[in-house]
Amino acid sequence: MFSKRIMKTLLLLFVVASSVAFCAAKPDLERERAALLKAEADFEKARAEKGLEGWLSFFADDTADVAPGYPITSGKEAMRRRLEKQWNPNLKLTWTPAKADVAASGDLGYTFGTWELTGQSQDGSPIRETGKYSTVWKKQRDGSWKVVLDLGNSDPEKK
Amino acid sequence: MFSKRIMKTLLLLFVVASSVAFCAAKPDLERERAALLKAEADFEKARAEKGLEGWLSFFADDTADVAPGYPITSGKEAMRRRLEKQWNPNLKLTWTPAKADVAASGDLGYTFGTWELTGQSQDGSPIRETGKYSTVWKKQRDGSWKVVLDLGNSDPEKK
Repeated sequence: MFSKRIMKTLLLLFVVASSVAFCAAKPDLERERAALLKAEADFEKARAEKGLEGWLSFFADDTADVAPGYPITSGKEAMRRRLEKQWNPNLKLTWTPAKADVAASGDLGYTFGTWELTGQSQDGSPIRETGKYSTVWKKQRDGSWKVVLDLGNSDPEKK
Repeated sequence: MFSKRIMKTLLLLFVVASSVAFCAAKPDLERERAALLKAEADFEKARAEKGLEGWLSFFADDTADVAPGYPITSGKEAMRRRLEKQWNPNLKLTWTPAKADVAASGDLGYTFGTWELTGQSQDGSPIRETGKYSTVWKKQRDGSWKVVLDLGNSDPEKK
């Protein structure tokens, strides 16, 4: 049906086309940055609506936990054990990302911004604290972005 | 010299070989993790030996600055202006990374660990503070890793 010459030319074209297609399959970084900003908003909403479980649902199973005053631990279960003792449902945490960026491979990204904590302390006194945060996100096998590191500083109290 | 058939076969082989070589040129992630840990040690040494200039030399030109009590700014020059007013040469900052990891593309990575600040405050009183930090690193065009985001929390004072 085809001559050998045509077969060879087709084979060459196929190899070139598939190589180009394979190499060019780069992540859409603008889309990934937007996905991180959406994850930030969903994360905030999950915490507001579901408390501790909502908060934990945005962390990767292998997240680090770097809370002030505690040793660094690895894994979401260690984070859960710490937070179950400390969680105060009378506090509202909100945050505003200033930027999101991702690696060229689209598997690692980070966000940072400002946070505000308001509500009542365990003893009933009013709380209003602010600061900045840095969050490192890792894309999971299911395509979702989850937090592997989340750390915040605190602005000094206004005097 | 060569028949057309041999030329075509060679061309096909060349296309396949170069496609495989190009696609397989993946970063050596173990090496990049080790490079980040080395950058951490060099960063600490530069600060100890050269003060503010040593500190700044490890930040990317487009670094964010997320210091407590200040607005978020973008760029090393804004960071420099803030630090020139605040720098206390009588403080020693040391840190110990707990982990370094990088994206599959080898262009973005992060480290975290613990820090310790010792020395004397501006009014001469002794200081010893500890906390944790999170640093995001971006590989620069010259192949070096530089900091684009560096944020630390503070352990509560021991009472």
